[in-house]
Amino acid sequence: MLSNDKLGAERENFLLPLPVSYLNAFEAITRDPNQELTIVEQEQEIVATFQLTFIPYLTYQGSTRAQIEAVRVKSDYRGQGLGTEIFQYAIQRSKDKGAHLLQLTTDKKRPEAKKFYESLGFVDSHEGMKLYL
Amino acid sequence: MLSNDKLGAERENFLLPLPVSYLNAFEAITRDPNQELTIVEQEQEIVATFQLTFIPYLTYQGSTRAQIEAVRVKSDYRGQGLGTEIFQYAIQRSKDKGAHLLQLTTDKKRPEAKKFYESLGFVDSHEGMKLYL
Repeated sequence: MLSNDKLGAERENFLLPLPVSYLNAFEAITRDPNQELTIVEQEQEIVATFQLTFIPYLTYQGSTRAQIEAVRVKSDYRGQGLGTEIFQYAIQRSKDKGAHLLQLTTDKKRPEAKKFYESLGFVDSHEGMKLYL
Repeated sequence: MLSNDKLGAERENFLLPLPVSYLNAFEAITRDPNQELTIVEQEQEIVATFQLTFIPYLTYQGSTRAQIEAVRVKSDYRGQGLGTEIFQYAIQRSKDKGAHLLQLTTDKKRPEAKKFYESLGFVDSHEGMKLYL
């Protein structure tokens, strides 16, 4: 799913066996209690995935922010409300973890994604800036 | 420093004793090996602070992203290159931790901050979207 996407196709490698870097990242995510990588199954098929990260900050009088990244829905399962269900879950889960804010960055090359997030109540108040190292 | 800022003034509470929520957040940051809260001192005075977070992801073939947030420089120490030094450190530290990307979000109400980040090579490729819970 990560590679079946106009941006992901350029940066992933899904040949089997998978590069060991994926396995190392999976272990790092699993080890860290502030990372939650979720897989959505329908009738024993993996149809979506997303990652929630909880980050403690001193700002806002000492708080936790939730961040959602790497949201992917299998192409033939889009347009069926699955994305909305994922975000309903993510919002509730973030509240349960005491987060006051759920944040994400979305590539400006995906205007349809931005519209979807706006429909959920997200506001594009910030610039999402990246520096490749 | 967090409150001495046009946005921070509205959302922080710096009366002494500090609300316990700050102390709880400080302990949560200290406990988490993926969080690095740094304080910059000059002649025994705290002049700046910032927080680096390292997040493992499956995307980009399994990778680590570095994220910098809550960058504050004491007002009478601005314009002296301290921000640039902080980012030189943050970039090197992120490379040392194996991150392929350093990311941040900056409030669109701070256009001068965006220009500063652009001067360091950051690209505003993403929208930074927030949902208050």
